[in-house]
Amino acid sequence: MKPYAQLTPAERKEEYARLQTEFDAWKAKGLSLNMARGKPGKQQLDLVSDIFGLMQAPRDYVSDGIDVRNYGEMCGLPAARRLFADILGCKPEQVFVGGNSSLQLMYDTIAKAYTHGLLHSPRPWCKEETVKWLCPAPGYDRHFKVTETFGFQLVTIPMTDGGPDMDAVEEAVKDPAVKGIWCVPKYSNPEGAIYSQETIRRLAALTPAAPDFLIMWDNAYCVHEFEGDYVPFPDILSICAEAGHPDMVFEFASTSKITLPGAGVACFACSEANMAHMEKLLTPQVISFDKVNQQRHVLYLRDKAHTLELMRKHAAIMGPKFRGVVDTLDREIAPLGIASWRRPKGGYFVSFNAMPGTARRTLALCKEAGVTMTSAGATFPYGKDPQDSNIRIAPSLPPVEELEQAMTVFCVCVKLAALEKLGV
Amino acid sequence: MKPYAQLTPAERKEEYARLQTEFDAWKAKGLSLNMARGKPGKQQLDLVSDIFGLMQAPRDYVSDGIDVRNYGEMCGLPAARRLFADILGCKPEQVFVGGNSSLQLMYDTIAKAYTHGLLHSPRPWCKEETVKWLCPAPGYDRHFKVTETFGFQLVTIPMTDGGPDMDAVEEAVKDPAVKGIWCVPKYSNPEGAIYSQETIRRLAALTPAAPDFLIMWDNAYCVHEFEGDYVPFPDILSICAEAGHPDMVFEFASTSKITLPGAGVACFACSEANMAHMEKLLTPQVISFDKVNQQRHVLYLRDKAHTLELMRKHAAIMGPKFRGVVDTLDREIAPLGIASWRRPKGGYFVSFNAMPGTARRTLALCKEAGVTMTSAGATFPYGKDPQDSNIRIAPSLPPVEELEQAMTVFCVCVKLAALEKLGV
Repeated sequence: MKPYAQLTPAERKEEYARLQTEFDAWKAKGLSLNMARGKPGKQQLDLVSDIFGLMQAPRDYVSDGIDVRNYGEMCGLPAARRLFADILGCKPEQVFVGGNSSLQLMYDTIAKAYTHGLLHSPRPWCKEETVKWLCPAPGYDRHFKVTETFGFQLVTIPMTDGGPDMDAVEEAVKDPAVKGIWCVPKYSNPEGAIYSQETIRRLAALTPAAPDFLIMWDNAYCVHEFEGDYVPFPDILSICAEAGHPDMVFEFASTSKITLPGAGVACFACSEANMAHMEKLLTPQVISFDKVNQQRHVLYLRDKAHTLELMRKHAAIMGPKFRGVVDTLDREIAPLGIASWRRPKGGYFVSFNAMPGTARRTLALCKEAGVTMTSAGATFPYGKDPQDSNIRIAPSLPPVEELEQAMTVFCVCVKLAALEKLGV
Repeated sequence: MKPYAQLTPAERKEEYARLQTEFDAWKAKGLSLNMARGKPGKQQLDLVSDIFGLMQAPRDYVSDGIDVRNYGEMCGLPAARRLFADILGCKPEQVFVGGNSSLQLMYDTIAKAYTHGLLHSPRPWCKEETVKWLCPAPGYDRHFKVTETFGFQLVTIPMTDGGPDMDAVEEAVKDPAVKGIWCVPKYSNPEGAIYSQETIRRLAALTPAAPDFLIMWDNAYCVHEFEGDYVPFPDILSICAEAGHPDMVFEFASTSKITLPGAGVACFACSEANMAHMEKLLTPQVISFDKVNQQRHVLYLRDKAHTLELMRKHAAIMGPKFRGVVDTLDREIAPLGIASWRRPKGGYFVSFNAMPGTARRTLALCKEAGVTMTSAGATFPYGKDPQDSNIRIAPSLPPVEELEQAMTVFCVCVKLAALEKLGV
């Protein structure tokens, strides 16, 4: 097949008719396939369910002399703090280990800034006239929603291959109303980009007008390679400290995609001064998080090296799915010159840029044929993609056979929408 | 021994000298005993640790067709919602099942009112000039702290045998700045009082000036009898609905003192309209709570009847401790006419009223002798007991032998402080 742009109107009509027949055939099958969210598949859940067999012997209930079954240790079990410090490359005393959700810890950090203020806030953010927030896009819809729900003005920052466009960021932070930025530094959601050393250095060196500017460093995919070797990644806390801004960053991570999405353990990491501030604010809120589950994870994951071994088993499940997705795109779409995508080596998504103006239509067609995807626009602030182009593909949940079907349907829809745009 | 008030100054001096010798002897032992918080003891933790043996078979991972290990079901596993509805006497769709901490759900409810407003709020509470909050006292220090941390003005409401003084409450809610009240309706913390039918009826019938007045109904000890049979307790949601105020109450409960304090499951219950409002506000915050632990609890507790069976086993451990405490007070302090206390049948505390002006001194002496108690004043707003009299005794944590020692020391300190007050 030639690139679509080179087709004559008659050829386009013919191709469209052929695809429509194919589409109708898929529709008739009454499929119900889901590539909407970065949910691990059943095979991955089964892989780690031996974690439930732990905590059987009375000695397992005790960690560093602490009975993990009782109240106490608000900042997390010391052994769990050591485990995450090992994984993230920071110090145990910089780590707060919470419940099952890093999203909730992120929400809570922003909420605390809103209700009480951060360490260097002149006042709680609810007392500010306007709060603006930098959103590298395409990005993670749930990040954007957190800042949207507190009424912040979301400012789109373009993404590059090496992370957020730092010229745009450096310019934006001159505005004292700009209070922070969302970052997914390794295997960014959805693009799978790894922030370059240069980007990281410039982020740490920022001198924002707001004294309480906050880098929300969501290291969600810190050990989540599905292709090739583990890629070492620098500790943002020490880089910010070296740049003279130790309190400018909160880092987040979880085991949601290491052990279990519903029942993992999440943490945040920050400077000791920020930790003291957060401890003070968290004391009225919570006696302690689930230390039994923290202990279960300490026993199960042990340390970074052992965690990386487990991640290779996940990779053996995830790798073929991602290769299937990208290979299908390479085969079906590449020759047509109507879209672009990346071939990520980790994370949970493939970011797909359809012909501008066709993302919504593509996904409406997918839905009609029983394939659910993240809604168009979701990767942009306020759910509005100015190009109507970016689509986030999440290949992790469906089994390989279903994924192949779903991708075939997706490619048909991408083509139909492109032809409609070109005119048929 | 005669009542202290009837002693001559010489007799007081003699008694004081005798007690001081006894005190010094205790001090020399270098004790380290803790009656500070309502923490279950090790025997109770061991009683329920067979809960960790569940979740072994693949069929256990599935509940109502839902894989409990994956993301989803933000409002909680349907089976867990049914379990709590059974225990509380409300409908499953009125129940939201969260993480391990009801305190955190309470904090979050108040936080949502502050940042976004409740269903009937004209505006978020952070935009109000003043927010006032009713605190029946003696009460739970952590409740008071939650409302204090958001800058609310705490208004003390006297407690009676049947709950908060409702004349005072009815008067207070005429002020539109008064936005809510803390309630522990069954085995109140620390007094162990059960709210009377009359109190409950008058609470439900309140017509506060604030359209978003909120009853925070912390049913922390709903099935927590340690003496005698289970005491049935009415469903506050239907009582408020019948009184025409279905949205005026949020109820809270947890299994922290049914299964494990660090690793139980907590819930809130509210009207369907409130639930819809909270769902909307919670969606940006959390994908789902730990449904594996919810499922573990569904399998372990099964239903209300089976839960009550387990509570009888807790009672067999708790009962002797409470009887020991009250018997010691009856024997050592009652004849002296210097203090009063209750004999609760459930909950986690004994509320002790020392001679006015002696609570701080009593606890300072306890500390000197190695016995840690909840600090004096803790049961009142801002930690200030105007009478300097109320002391919360928490007998659950120490083993019986240690508890006996601790109570003996406590009684010596109560007497010393009283004699100092009377003049020696």
